[in-house]
Amino acid sequence: MATAVEKGKPGSRRQDLQVVDCDVHPHYKDGINDLLPYLSPEWRRKVGAGPNRPWAKQLGVELSLPQNTLYMNPSGIMRRDTIPADGSPPASNPQQVIDQLLDPHSIDRAILIPGDVMGLGVLPDPDLAAAVAAANNDWMVERWLAADERFRGSICVAPQNPDAAAAEIERLAADRRIVQVFWPTTERFMGERQYYPIYEAAERHGLPVCIHPGAEAVFLRGPALASGSPTYYIEHHTLIPQVFASNLVSMLAQGVFERFPKLKLVLVEGGFAWLPGVIWRLDKNWRSVRDEVPWVKRPPSEYVWERVRFTTQPLVEPSRADLLAMCGMIHAERTLLFSSDYPHWDFDDPLTALDSLPAEMRQRIVVENAVETYGDRL
Amino acid sequence: MATAVEKGKPGSRRQDLQVVDCDVHPHYKDGINDLLPYLSPEWRRKVGAGPNRPWAKQLGVELSLPQNTLYMNPSGIMRRDTIPADGSPPASNPQQVIDQLLDPHSIDRAILIPGDVMGLGVLPDPDLAAAVAAANNDWMVERWLAADERFRGSICVAPQNPDAAAAEIERLAADRRIVQVFWPTTERFMGERQYYPIYEAAERHGLPVCIHPGAEAVFLRGPALASGSPTYYIEHHTLIPQVFASNLVSMLAQGVFERFPKLKLVLVEGGFAWLPGVIWRLDKNWRSVRDEVPWVKRPPSEYVWERVRFTTQPLVEPSRADLLAMCGMIHAERTLLFSSDYPHWDFDDPLTALDSLPAEMRQRIVVENAVETYGDRL
Repeated sequence: MATAVEKGKPGSRRQDLQVVDCDVHPHYKDGINDLLPYLSPEWRRKVGAGPNRPWAKQLGVELSLPQNTLYMNPSGIMRRDTIPADGSPPASNPQQVIDQLLDPHSIDRAILIPGDVMGLGVLPDPDLAAAVAAANNDWMVERWLAADERFRGSICVAPQNPDAAAAEIERLAADRRIVQVFWPTTERFMGERQYYPIYEAAERHGLPVCIHPGAEAVFLRGPALASGSPTYYIEHHTLIPQVFASNLVSMLAQGVFERFPKLKLVLVEGGFAWLPGVIWRLDKNWRSVRDEVPWVKRPPSEYVWERVRFTTQPLVEPSRADLLAMCGMIHAERTLLFSSDYPHWDFDDPLTALDSLPAEMRQRIVVENAVETYGDRL
Repeated sequence: MATAVEKGKPGSRRQDLQVVDCDVHPHYKDGINDLLPYLSPEWRRKVGAGPNRPWAKQLGVELSLPQNTLYMNPSGIMRRDTIPADGSPPASNPQQVIDQLLDPHSIDRAILIPGDVMGLGVLPDPDLAAAVAAANNDWMVERWLAADERFRGSICVAPQNPDAAAAEIERLAADRRIVQVFWPTTERFMGERQYYPIYEAAERHGLPVCIHPGAEAVFLRGPALASGSPTYYIEHHTLIPQVFASNLVSMLAQGVFERFPKLKLVLVEGGFAWLPGVIWRLDKNWRSVRDEVPWVKRPPSEYVWERVRFTTQPLVEPSRADLLAMCGMIHAERTLLFSSDYPHWDFDDPLTALDSLPAEMRQRIVVENAVETYGDRL
């Protein structure tokens, strides 16, 4: 709500913001059971949820949402100090996020991307996927956005059900604490035309679309990456940006940014150092073969600089000179947004992660680029 | 043969070389029929080949080698001026390549990668694939290497049949005009252990392994790229480097370069501007999770700078400053080899394509790095 911005609490005016964190993950406390209050009786029966049945998922009588669980990260997938003593999941209690992330790191806006629906895009049943997305959104609004005025929300949609996704955006866009649409990636390229209703709804309400690593990279619906499916976590994690590159090139080549001239895209946790190689190649190809895609009116890179944004975490760590050169190549002073990825293991601290960047660029990244991207909803 | 190097013809001593072209594609004149003299009667019957039957491929009674034919390039796939007046395929006659490529461009070494077996890696029958590879190699030696002493050859192997691939390397490695092993990529990552016999044979004979864009990116055996299969040629061609990144990361993470300490890898026509993003991410992940891959003893980038090489074509075209910065990031003065990709549509001319690079770096790229990579076979 605009009121959250205008209340005069320190750090709550947009022009006074110190740090905007564009990737924070709240988790369910008791798995799919957290969603029961937000599901119809019919869906409640279908997902098979019920309290205190730790065996239910294992035996397949309760819905398991697709997760990135096929690789084992030897460092664990969560920051160890985020695991509560009572055995509940990390970041399943808003107060923990406030105490451990927002207050000590001077974060005045934390954009939530719920951590349990990352894999929703590969759930085969499109109606089930849409029902889970909607319940997840109600849970986020009620349990998280209401808990602290520094939280901002993402509407999760089920892209395998474009009409329902557009309707879900319509249902929630009036809440000004919602700042973007979260699109769990699928095994289909994002430029394809069946997705136009989603882009149309997002554009109508001025909501950027964002994607984040999800289950598409874990071969649940076919080989995960170019050339097949890797063997180890280190390969999987290193190659995740391919998913982002594929979808970005698809959207550019199929003219999504021409068709929806106000649409913005935020690529969360997909890195950015892959961009020069991809965009130089695409621009060169566009000069050579744009007969094939006449709806792409300008060099594809121009759409990127104007309307695509990237988040910092996990920040690559080459020499300082190379990092600065890379930031120059991607116009980081306009395109890069800070993110911590709390509570995940490779968390970046906003007070130290960007130390090697010039102060002016750092300020753009931790606040101003986010304000420009999300506007007065932030 | 060493004699080819020592004959004293202008440009034929390795230290006198002017230009080494690392990617030239000879083509068959009459499709699979060119291989008939090199196939056993049994295989000749199985591939169904015969002269003057233009309908045979279409009706499925003759083997069609897998090709990149599912996308239409609006600029055509060959340089128009390489299409002979007699209707035969471009670069199917050695004299044409001599007259149109070697002589006018001062190219004293042209490394051949036969253009009709690019897709061999996705042929389902591993014995058929091995038989075609061997026949192709005999064809290349007899029709091409014998035609001009400036030609050098690549042994095509069928990776889906590792033991036969190793045997094929043994069969031909004594011919010193053979400078490398050509590996048509498949739908399996190149680091996997079933491939060790191929690496062992290549290493034993001091032959680098090379890959080149092939049918793996055209969804013949599952989705082509991360997130699925793109719609248009421009997407397909822009995203081809994903295949190279996947296989490089696989080989690094699975310890192939530790297990085969003399093995070299040449990534032909896969670009290089994607490398910083991939290798920085991999190095960072290695520092965090190398418990998972204890056989990787050093930061993965070190293996790359020592033993992996990249070719120039198609050269990206950012600003000169960005191109130079990118060349610095990948240590181009050691890692980059010139290639023209003759006779394909996006041919690069060695006399002009690298104009924007400093003279010393250009000299490394057009000659010296190739000499270091291929040694005295060149």
